[in-house]
Amino acid sequence: MVYTLVLLRHGQSDWNQKNLFTGWVDVRLSDQGRAEATRGGELLVEKGVLPDVLHTSVLTRAIQTADLALEAADRLWIDVRRSWRLNERHYGALQGLDKAETLEKYGPEQFMLWRRSFDTPPPPLADDAEWSQVGDPRYANLSDDEMPRTECLKDVIARMLPYWESDIIPDLQAGKTVLVTAHGNSLRALVKHLDGISDDDIAELNIPTGIPLVYELGDDFMPTKPGEYLDPEAAAAGAAAVAAQGKK
Amino acid sequence: MVYTLVLLRHGQSDWNQKNLFTGWVDVRLSDQGRAEATRGGELLVEKGVLPDVLHTSVLTRAIQTADLALEAADRLWIDVRRSWRLNERHYGALQGLDKAETLEKYGPEQFMLWRRSFDTPPPPLADDAEWSQVGDPRYANLSDDEMPRTECLKDVIARMLPYWESDIIPDLQAGKTVLVTAHGNSLRALVKHLDGISDDDIAELNIPTGIPLVYELGDDFMPTKPGEYLDPEAAAAGAAAVAAQGKK
Repeated sequence: MVYTLVLLRHGQSDWNQKNLFTGWVDVRLSDQGRAEATRGGELLVEKGVLPDVLHTSVLTRAIQTADLALEAADRLWIDVRRSWRLNERHYGALQGLDKAETLEKYGPEQFMLWRRSFDTPPPPLADDAEWSQVGDPRYANLSDDEMPRTECLKDVIARMLPYWESDIIPDLQAGKTVLVTAHGNSLRALVKHLDGISDDDIAELNIPTGIPLVYELGDDFMPTKPGEYLDPEAAAAGAAAVAAQGKK
Repeated sequence: MVYTLVLLRHGQSDWNQKNLFTGWVDVRLSDQGRAEATRGGELLVEKGVLPDVLHTSVLTRAIQTADLALEAADRLWIDVRRSWRLNERHYGALQGLDKAETLEKYGPEQFMLWRRSFDTPPPPLADDAEWSQVGDPRYANLSDDEMPRTECLKDVIARMLPYWESDIIPDLQAGKTVLVTAHGNSLRALVKHLDGISDDDIAELNIPTGIPLVYELGDDFMPTKPGEYLDPEAAAAGAAAVAAQGKK
């Protein structure tokens, strides 16, 4: 049996555009981000990849991306499951800060450590801070321990992988083509697992926005061959753009 | 314990605009319909009615209505459940026909019988007809008996009420504010049950589009007082417009 998994990173948000650290702040797609999502759905149709079930984070930009892509693919009617475990990395005290100002204030070394270190999270965000999500009703079911105040990629893996096992694999097992719409870091966490990327090498992995990444999985729910972007040329350009953004 | 149920009928679709019988044909919202849906979501915010879970049909126009309303209410992240049991009435052989031409061809008596009779369905739609939904993947899990080829309101009640009992009531019971986005006839079926309307009187009930209708339910999941439209004035005008359309 071959199982099909489709990963889709949301496109540009209002805060990407403004160059602010976002994390769990619930911003919306920009017009460019909306166009990227629609294009992602058109690619699904062109390549004949038709999702049977959607898994998304509980962040609006990922949900908008899924809805626009599925509308373009005429598949809005598929089942939907949402989980905070697919959310973007919580950016801690950096949430809401300007990236350029932060780089200037803390210097390039500290900046890149916060952005790309596997196991060093930014300082935690205070519960009463402007951009805290503590008290947001969508997280009412999380225990205080589960509710992050900051995260490194290692933390994202620790809360994402249990959901992969408990919720996504069963849908694959049922023979469904699964679409996961999520974020740069929750998808990097999943790809790290699927492709067996080391803690060091994952820093170099950049997932482009808006381009479906399709994996064929075997009976162990691991890839039988490398994942394929449905528009490889645009994916390469997009990944380079993400990498350049990190180095700015 | 008081339970809160919100009903929302989708707004104008492309085929409403063209005056065609729609039923299970999966048309989309028109621009006017999209604006109605957004306005519906704004009303939820203005009146402080915040859904915790969404139930929709599997027809795109109802899903688009929910997504636009929840986007306007900043609640896209709530759980979603979909069921064919909330679909519009299957209009049988009338699906895809022009309403004015049908009225002219069959006369006003037959026309109103098909539109509003409680238990007389239109002639069935052939499985190989252009506007048949037999073979549509979203209905792959329905038995051949469950898959309608035409329906009267009585048939809609027979397939909708089991879903009310099995899926919607449990969400209410869990203390969730439930939003149901659906169609003229699936919502008339539910309102008939809730308000105890007779088989004869239900013909006169017209539900306006795009205006949330809020019920408070008691422990028996029946209304403790009449349902309230969040914009009563617009609701009265909308219901009159629907009634006039039937008499055109």
